[in-house]
Amino acid sequence: MMTTIKDVAQEASVSVATVSRVINSNGYVNEDTRKKVEAAVEKLNYKPNSVARSLFKKESKTIGIIVPDIKNPYFPELVRGVEDYLIEKGFTTILCNSDEDPEKEQLYLDVMKQKYVDGVIIVSNTIEPSVINEYDMPVVALDRSIHKDVPTFIINNREGGRKATNHLLDIGCQRIAHIKGPELIENAEERYLGYMDVIKQQDWFHEDYVIWGNYDQKESARATMALLEKHPEIDGIFAGNDVMALGALKAADYLNIKVPQELAIIGFDGVDLTEMTAPELSTISQPIYQMSTHAAEALIDLIEGRPIKHQENIFPSTLIQRQSTNSVKENVTWLQKSL
Amino acid sequence: MMTTIKDVAQEASVSVATVSRVINSNGYVNEDTRKKVEAAVEKLNYKPNSVARSLFKKESKTIGIIVPDIKNPYFPELVRGVEDYLIEKGFTTILCNSDEDPEKEQLYLDVMKQKYVDGVIIVSNTIEPSVINEYDMPVVALDRSIHKDVPTFIINNREGGRKATNHLLDIGCQRIAHIKGPELIENAEERYLGYMDVIKQQDWFHEDYVIWGNYDQKESARATMALLEKHPEIDGIFAGNDVMALGALKAADYLNIKVPQELAIIGFDGVDLTEMTAPELSTISQPIYQMSTHAAEALIDLIEGRPIKHQENIFPSTLIQRQSTNSVKENVTWLQKSL
Repeated sequence: MMTTIKDVAQEASVSVATVSRVINSNGYVNEDTRKKVEAAVEKLNYKPNSVARSLFKKESKTIGIIVPDIKNPYFPELVRGVEDYLIEKGFTTILCNSDEDPEKEQLYLDVMKQKYVDGVIIVSNTIEPSVINEYDMPVVALDRSIHKDVPTFIINNREGGRKATNHLLDIGCQRIAHIKGPELIENAEERYLGYMDVIKQQDWFHEDYVIWGNYDQKESARATMALLEKHPEIDGIFAGNDVMALGALKAADYLNIKVPQELAIIGFDGVDLTEMTAPELSTISQPIYQMSTHAAEALIDLIEGRPIKHQENIFPSTLIQRQSTNSVKENVTWLQKSL
Repeated sequence: MMTTIKDVAQEASVSVATVSRVINSNGYVNEDTRKKVEAAVEKLNYKPNSVARSLFKKESKTIGIIVPDIKNPYFPELVRGVEDYLIEKGFTTILCNSDEDPEKEQLYLDVMKQKYVDGVIIVSNTIEPSVINEYDMPVVALDRSIHKDVPTFIINNREGGRKATNHLLDIGCQRIAHIKGPELIENAEERYLGYMDVIKQQDWFHEDYVIWGNYDQKESARATMALLEKHPEIDGIFAGNDVMALGALKAADYLNIKVPQELAIIGFDGVDLTEMTAPELSTISQPIYQMSTHAAEALIDLIEGRPIKHQENIFPSTLIQRQSTNSVKENVTWLQKSL
């Protein structure tokens, strides 16, 4: 028979309310009474609610998520997916902004280890697998892979890069440039390689056509300005993420180049922001919410000792064509649809 | 004389490494040894490092922040300010998305109470002050006030509303509409009242000129479309937040109305997004980062038992004029400056 809170109260010769106060550490209980209750809980092997239980077990029912910067529009969507899933399972989510600084990442891991955080979801291109081993905590890699032994939830970035570039060819672009993300970020490299897979067949390819945008809108706008002034023949741009595509849109606007009539632009990620611009932005969309909830689910499996189905989980990306790679007249936007 | 870890080791007849393992719960220690060490710590009143100490004291060195939705571009900036300040002080930040649902807010408060979270920063217009009293935790209100007894960090929204509306009059607008935020949100009401303070003097005011946008881009775009079709005389729009101003921009683009030549638009909040659009968006800027770090500082003061300087902390807003309320030619953007 299941032990109840009443059994514990009887064993400890206290009221049920007192047992509840001890278990939930809610309200004053004197130290001797607390010890009696804790002894009774132990003797009867009573299972209180999960949160109180975690206190006995030195578990926290809390996980950490380390992202580069919550202000980058991709990460709120990712973090929201993780948090939504975890709160349903009784876990809370500690948010950590690393600024992609390995020292800050290590600081956060130290703090989380000290707080008995049950596991960590990491978005990082700087962390060393050996560092993760040291901490001996369940870890899952999201958006960026860390090591083959760390369960990973990403999309096929190279295939996405090919999709974006082929789309620009399909709509008739004849000179296609690429705005590349930061050098050390694997997904930026993969998207670039996808572009190259398609473009290297083209006799018009010129190495100037690959510019650097650092996943940043302003850097991308400046680099695109310089590119379009030097190479006015460019009629298509594949930006390695949506924020850089916004930068390219801005550069085109500044130079009075019409998008998409004179220049088609496609981004990558599919953040909500891409629907907010005028023209709306075509993009290679990641299943951000789905990916993040799957990563959270896997982390809980690890924490609770269940086997993980797959170490490497690669999600498909989807081409979303909007005004920035289409004739404005042809394209129906959400605004039109909703009237 | 201060008790050291060596004294504890001697008292418990174990090694210093073992004491360290017990205090940091780092590595295996058998249960009897753990009890001996804990007894020695208690007897000698040894003060281990702050994190280990908090475990003895049932503090968590963790705070919660409840926001409506981290995906709304205002909140990542707010949360980042809080998290940056707290990690410096050794506190971690649990992120909670309430969707402005009172039941979810209460769920998060329950969970945080159970986890000995030291305090909570709340952005809410739905929470009842009586609910907060029940939990008996340090609480600070950010962006939206809850009750005069809860320390509050906000801007003067009504004055900001007047600033926005006066700016549109100053640049020559003669028929100014307002896109209002949700009915139950005090800051939306205040911004509307600021608009009315200025507009009620004008003989042209028409009640149709106030429309509802629910702090949502799409709802704002639809409402703006309807407004501009019915009232083509409108030449200025003050949107109650930046996201709704983006919606108005989109509606204007769709109707081929030139911004700012035919229609000036100004937003509110000053999120990074306002620099990303073409044209760039004028806005009433909140000192988001400053406000959030001050709120975090006050929460730590409450947690650590220091007096709070002011219960009500009202920050100034700043008019930022950009292309959407200016002649494009006159205005120098960050893009131009950076060339």
